[in-house]
Amino acid sequence: MKIGFIGTGAMGEPMARNLLKAGFDVTVYNRRTERSAVLAAEGAHVAPNVAAAAAQDLVISMLADDQATETLVLDSDFLGALPPHGIHVCMATISAALGERLQATHAAAGRGYVSAPVFGRPPAAAAAQLFIVAAGAEHALDACQPALDALGQKTFRVGSEAAAANVIKISGNFMLASMIESLGEACALSARYGVAPSQLVEILTSSVFPVPAYKIYGGLIASGQFEPPGFPLRLGLKDIRLALAAADSKEVAMPVASLVRDHYLKALTRGYADFDWAALALVSMEDAGASPRR
Amino acid sequence: MKIGFIGTGAMGEPMARNLLKAGFDVTVYNRRTERSAVLAAEGAHVAPNVAAAAAQDLVISMLADDQATETLVLDSDFLGALPPHGIHVCMATISAALGERLQATHAAAGRGYVSAPVFGRPPAAAAAQLFIVAAGAEHALDACQPALDALGQKTFRVGSEAAAANVIKISGNFMLASMIESLGEACALSARYGVAPSQLVEILTSSVFPVPAYKIYGGLIASGQFEPPGFPLRLGLKDIRLALAAADSKEVAMPVASLVRDHYLKALTRGYADFDWAALALVSMEDAGASPRR
Amino acid sequence: MKIGFIGTGAMGEPMARNLLKAGFDVTVYNRRTERSAVLAAEGAHVAPNVAAAAAQDLVISMLADDQATETLVLDSDFLGALPPHGIHVCMATISAALGERLQATHAAAGRGYVSAPVFGRPPAAAAAQLFIVAAGAEHALDACQPALDALGQKTFRVGSEAAAANVIKISGNFMLASMIESLGEACALSARYGVAPSQLVEILTSSVFPVPAYKIYGGLIASGQFEPPGFPLRLGLKDIRLALAAADSKEVAMPVASLVRDHYLKALTRGYADFDWAALALVSMEDAGASPRR
Amino acid sequence: MKIGFIGTGAMGEPMARNLLKAGFDVTVYNRRTERSAVLAAEGAHVAPNVAAAAAQDLVISMLADDQATETLVLDSDFLGALPPHGIHVCMATISAALGERLQATHAAAGRGYVSAPVFGRPPAAAAAQLFIVAAGAEHALDACQPALDALGQKTFRVGSEAAAANVIKISGNFMLASMIESLGEACALSARYGVAPSQLVEILTSSVFPVPAYKIYGGLIASGQFEPPGFPLRLGLKDIRLALAAADSKEVAMPVASLVRDHYLKALTRGYADFDWAALALVSMEDAGASPRR
Repeated sequence: MKIGFIGTGAMGEPMARNLLKAGFDVTVYNRRTERSAVLAAEGAHVAPNVAAAAAQDLVISMLADDQATETLVLDSDFLGALPPHGIHVCMATISAALGERLQATHAAAGRGYVSAPVFGRPPAAAAAQLFIVAAGAEHALDACQPALDALGQKTFRVGSEAAAANVIKISGNFMLASMIESLGEACALSARYGVAPSQLVEILTSSVFPVPAYKIYGGLIASGQFEPPGFPLRLGLKDIRLALAAADSKEVAMPVASLVRDHYLKALTRGYADFDWAALALVSMEDAGASPRR
Repeated sequence: MKIGFIGTGAMGEPMARNLLKAGFDVTVYNRRTERSAVLAAEGAHVAPNVAAAAAQDLVISMLADDQATETLVLDSDFLGALPPHGIHVCMATISAALGERLQATHAAAGRGYVSAPVFGRPPAAAAAQLFIVAAGAEHALDACQPALDALGQKTFRVGSEAAAANVIKISGNFMLASMIESLGEACALSARYGVAPSQLVEILTSSVFPVPAYKIYGGLIASGQFEPPGFPLRLGLKDIRLALAAADSKEVAMPVASLVRDHYLKALTRGYADFDWAALALVSMEDAGASPRR
Repeated sequence: MKIGFIGTGAMGEPMARNLLKAGFDVTVYNRRTERSAVLAAEGAHVAPNVAAAAAQDLVISMLADDQATETLVLDSDFLGALPPHGIHVCMATISAALGERLQATHAAAGRGYVSAPVFGRPPAAAAAQLFIVAAGAEHALDACQPALDALGQKTFRVGSEAAAANVIKISGNFMLASMIESLGEACALSARYGVAPSQLVEILTSSVFPVPAYKIYGGLIASGQFEPPGFPLRLGLKDIRLALAAADSKEVAMPVASLVRDHYLKALTRGYADFDWAALALVSMEDAGASPRR
Repeated sequence: MKIGFIGTGAMGEPMARNLLKAGFDVTVYNRRTERSAVLAAEGAHVAPNVAAAAAQDLVISMLADDQATETLVLDSDFLGALPPHGIHVCMATISAALGERLQATHAAAGRGYVSAPVFGRPPAAAAAQLFIVAAGAEHALDACQPALDALGQKTFRVGSEAAAANVIKISGNFMLASMIESLGEACALSARYGVAPSQLVEILTSSVFPVPAYKIYGGLIASGQFEPPGFPLRLGLKDIRLALAAADSKEVAMPVASLVRDHYLKALTRGYADFDWAALALVSMEDAGASPRR
């Protein structure tokens, strides 16, 4: 099976590598050509343009956001180049609205579309340990399953509506952001009673929340170390905006999401755009006179 | 070491039993005498009144709330009966303010005081698998450690200020309640996109949150089954009020806690006082037309 | 001065009539032609298409929302038909972003643009008692002042940046919506203490808030009468979304606006889209078991 | 009619003076004796203790808060000194719970009780232009009406339940605080679009909100001048706490009140306890990088 891979950034590069390792014939494309050199040395073909990358059996896109995905897929000759039997697998974290729109556009063009966002950060991508949430037509899901198996530890199939997969990914990031916000408030409270945030985090993660997400983000918050970012705060804001937009269009109130969005905006004003998104916790801690930073 | 145990309810009874099993000489007291019969059959002495239970080396109290604790400890002859070398270990979830007050009152009376609230529900108490957060004078903590070892899997010592332990317990319950609230919002969103809450919960707990707290509460929310309650909603409200009171007295804003409190109040109005506290999630789900209940 | 008037709805019709009364030569255009008949009988010319209405010295547009304004102004031959000395005065409540974009588009085409949203509802429009907030180039403001004088009781000039006028209008509607929300919460509280909302409203508007806005909306809330709507709830939601969008793009947190948006979404779910936007107050009142409706 | 007046502070002193002017026989008491000297020179008797002030036909108390009222009324010989036909009129802003408790205590002692909090600040008190909200038994209200007529421009009678009057007063202060919060958010938004807060306030108060409350507080916010305080921020926080406590005890969610409370707490942390309570607006403005202060 020939696979096109568009977007070889921090996540895309290790994912493309895993496809190569699994024996697939992979053609990569990145707007910035130099990003493709390493993969070329490892056996990938390098497409000179989008169309060349799209002229494959399966085309995976892993771009930064809605705008990048729209530009590359809708405002280019991508769809024209995708073969009649071709399937586009969009693995980026994009809006539910764009997920719906891409599915409709592909259907109108008689092409296959799978929405398959992932949980996991670059190290998980490198270890082929991503969790993949996939939605699309049954036969399209079947067709891309071998490729997904090379990328993640598990694929959750969630039906035929593309947006469902996007919303689950968005919900997961919302859950993480709300966890960070709550940790910030709990640390602020405890600190004012003389309890070091590191101690609170240790107790919580040894008892009720013995799980990496709490340990990692709790550790960042307790130490006040938000640079370099694992996932920058401005992208955390982007994702919470995706949650609110998805909710708004279905008339769902998500008050914790609203609150997290407001705190992210304050964090931007305080200059934390390029901190790790866990710096969301700084807002409540600073507002209580309990900043972990010196 | 002779131990008095006051309050042999759902948590207290298995805890007192574990002390008996560990070989301690235990004298139990409960306002409702019939609650002491089973433990008596297992070797406990039964105190006819508070004073008799308090006339021991170590006296553990495990009562429902602030009011019960105040009534039994401050408005009785408890302190007069506690011997000069006696130590009172208060293991209930009480307010930080009462924790401070009890510590001061015992100090003024020349008696030892340890604040030692626990994480864990009745099954964990029965299995001696509680997590205990203990604060108090070093020598008092040392003195009660053997008893605590018979009750839990781990004791976290958090310094000499009693209120610190109370605040950590309160923070933990706040973290759980905010998790429930966020799960409710995420399930509401997903449901409106055709994703069953059970599917969202399965994905979240298989990927980023593979931990019992998310599985248990997520399962309750997805099934819409909130009766019988593991921990009733009105007590969840009580605990979030403790968080807000502790925060207020130190000038800490906890907006997620405020929001959770408001949703608990709405849940009461809807008649959910005796549902499991996970029914907090119903408020957001119902408000979005996505109730899990038939 | 020849004036084109586009959009002769509930607000636009009486405004165009006032221009006729003031002696201006007015050419009206409405997508639905029958809406122009009455004004034609009163002396207005009826334009057969947008271009004809736009070929005037001054062209006022008063359309429903961003989409209608974009369609008519940007996706038509409007700009091509506007004469070189022509000035477009946009009086609709549109987003700050569209205000900026329209100003830039007109500038690029060498045409004048004035942003001039209004405070006031149809009766105020009919009585030429609107409050107008106008932004644009000095000479353009001077040129359209005589027309604005025929429409309102006062024009506030707020500088040369079009978006400033839009943001002030949006802020005013936000203030009204937040007043409604707070009234709902206060009525809910008082009702639970046996105070009829009508009594609370009477006291508040006789003492600290003796002003029509509080009397009118307070009266609606107290009576529970939200039909027919003076201004429908779904448009109230539209305006609070404009506030949040404007705030988001400048990194401003507006927590009351977030909360009002969330309550408007709940009101939609409850079926109140076509109630008066004061029905926002129902959410808090119903949630407290204190609905004013029988 | 002989009137006792307890608490001759910023509000109480001009109120007592108006009673003297109206020809009543007035006996004043203040914990700090020197506060009574001026009134003595104007014809008031000075009571040497609470009991002497309470031994009158009508006794008005105007103290700072719940605690002061409890101490003076419940923990003293006040009730013993009040004659069998005596009526106590409590005009302070106290909690609904204390209002209920005082009414019950007086009833048990066979004494009359009227709850009569006021709207208006010291200048309004001096001008006898207060708005009075009164609740109590019909005959007691009738008996004190002449005295109330000497103090305010209007008395609203709201039934026989004392707490109703307290809740209305609390609701009014909540409405004012929420207005301040919303003004702060609107000013933050506008400022980021280049609109001076003073301009926004002028437009709002010339159009939809032409009323002193908006003008006064809007003016303070726009100028950034919060000292000296007309009403200090820490008392504003006190009053919003009264609203939340009253709401909590009746299971009413007041999300705007929760948010205002949280912002007041942040304002305390920022050192604004003794600013005018309008400094609540600083929180949102500062958080958006739009502080009005230099």
